[in-house]
Amino acid sequence: MIDVCLVGTAGTVPLPGRALAAALVRIGGAMVLFDCGEGTQVAMRAPGWGFGGLAAICLTHVHADHVAGLPGLLLTLGMSGRTERLEVYGARFTAEVVEALRVMVPRLPYEVRVHELRGGESFELAGARVRTMALKHRAPCLGYRIDLARSRPFLPERAEALGIPRLLWRRLQRGETADFPGGRASPDDVLGPPRRGLSLAYVTDTRPLDGLVDFVRDVDLLICEATHMAPGEEARSAEHDHMHLTDACRIASAAGVRRLWLTHFSQSIVDPLSYQDTARALCAVAEIGRDGLTTTLSFPEG
Amino acid sequence: MIDVCLVGTAGTVPLPGRALAAALVRIGGAMVLFDCGEGTQVAMRAPGWGFGGLAAICLTHVHADHVAGLPGLLLTLGMSGRTERLEVYGARFTAEVVEALRVMVPRLPYEVRVHELRGGESFELAGARVRTMALKHRAPCLGYRIDLARSRPFLPERAEALGIPRLLWRRLQRGETADFPGGRASPDDVLGPPRRGLSLAYVTDTRPLDGLVDFVRDVDLLICEATHMAPGEEARSAEHDHMHLTDACRIASAAGVRRLWLTHFSQSIVDPLSYQDTARALCAVAEIGRDGLTTTLSFPEG
Repeated sequence: MIDVCLVGTAGTVPLPGRALAAALVRIGGAMVLFDCGEGTQVAMRAPGWGFGGLAAICLTHVHADHVAGLPGLLLTLGMSGRTERLEVYGARFTAEVVEALRVMVPRLPYEVRVHELRGGESFELAGARVRTMALKHRAPCLGYRIDLARSRPFLPERAEALGIPRLLWRRLQRGETADFPGGRASPDDVLGPPRRGLSLAYVTDTRPLDGLVDFVRDVDLLICEATHMAPGEEARSAEHDHMHLTDACRIASAAGVRRLWLTHFSQSIVDPLSYQDTARALCAVAEIGRDGLTTTLSFPEG
Repeated sequence: MIDVCLVGTAGTVPLPGRALAAALVRIGGAMVLFDCGEGTQVAMRAPGWGFGGLAAICLTHVHADHVAGLPGLLLTLGMSGRTERLEVYGARFTAEVVEALRVMVPRLPYEVRVHELRGGESFELAGARVRTMALKHRAPCLGYRIDLARSRPFLPERAEALGIPRLLWRRLQRGETADFPGGRASPDDVLGPPRRGLSLAYVTDTRPLDGLVDFVRDVDLLICEATHMAPGEEARSAEHDHMHLTDACRIASAAGVRRLWLTHFSQSIVDPLSYQDTARALCAVAEIGRDGLTTTLSFPEG
């Protein structure tokens, strides 16, 4: 199960009621924050998940609107008594910028460890695999994809039929073989076919680029920038190294994503929700994001 | 006339509905922002004064909760087409921190000029005199006091009686002497007695200290920190280098300030307004600040 909250939906300039683009993902008890612009620490209080479970912050890039909230959040975490190390992942320059920001919060009761990635690398987080992709923006920028694997189903009726003592069932579930008085059992004897896991991707700020469709293919939820949405503004998006609503919807459709949340709206868009029909016409699973939009991705039955 | 808006009232940790402590002061068409914590650029939209008139930012000190909003505000000013130089005043380390923050907003279409002050210096801003005082905090910190002088009244009946041509009245009002066919006139001939101007002070973060009462004496409005307010928490304030409600009220009373706005409330204070009666009992002109509280200081009639 993965809980997701779209913390903010503003691109570049935060507005009253529209915090800067960020997302909070909760897997088990562990939370991962994607981007941390000015005001994110306040906006991320909306779902009521607290700060205690924050395991990592994944930054897309070091432009102010995606990272300037970091010192304030670090300070608030310190005030709340945190002592566990905090992992910060990001593109090139992340370490330099975090160090620069730390001049305002030099003393913290916990360690902040920065991991700079070039894109293509992956890492484990809260039991899930996080993959990265180098995006196409004016600063080095990363897209993120989380895949939470699902174990094969355990078939107790088969284990019973084979006479495997209940004491050994857990070992088999974990993928180990088990010897017992009546013989030896392997996981394949008692596990059903592989099952689809859960996945989501967070993609901002970028131009459309080769490989992005493959990167987000089949995800349960794609959170993707649509900085401009008005018809005819495609060139403006290109000029600013961003994506237009049409770009995001085209990529999501081609990738067969199960759900698309659009975000990172230009301040020139007065009412993002007025583009809901336009988005749906381009991609049946598109949804115009709004601050605090929350969902739970669950393993399907069976 | 001076317009004042209490932009935020939170100390250290911003909360939903309680932005970090900051104040916006408008003198004529020019605006001065005091402190710029995370979220200030959004909160300062409340009075609807726009960004165009922002002439200067006066920072008290470089702790994150007073300065981390600077890169975002600088970026937003740039996006809004600003080309005029922006003056930033602050205590020691301000230049270093602003430079560090600029790593996130390296390119701006206007110049940012930082002035570091040690306290005791003064400067002109929007036709007013701004004085500074070194406060007592764990980082170098400045209190600010603005005095807007009021010109002596021009007495047209006296100028008429002396036969001074109307063409020369403005020179006399400016304090210059004027020669005319019938003789020579000096300002004292046509100006009434000196009149009280307008003044306000912004004081946070600090312990009470010698000289503070004199520094804020007689101001029309004192905006002052009261980080803790509960009875018995005086020691906690001392421990954190802050002031308690009782400190702020005592200083304001001793200084004879005409109005006191309390601000910079600890996140542990759930409902600051519940301390209104306590504050009033200690200082008759005390008011518990709230985000967006706005007033206009006007020259009295005559």
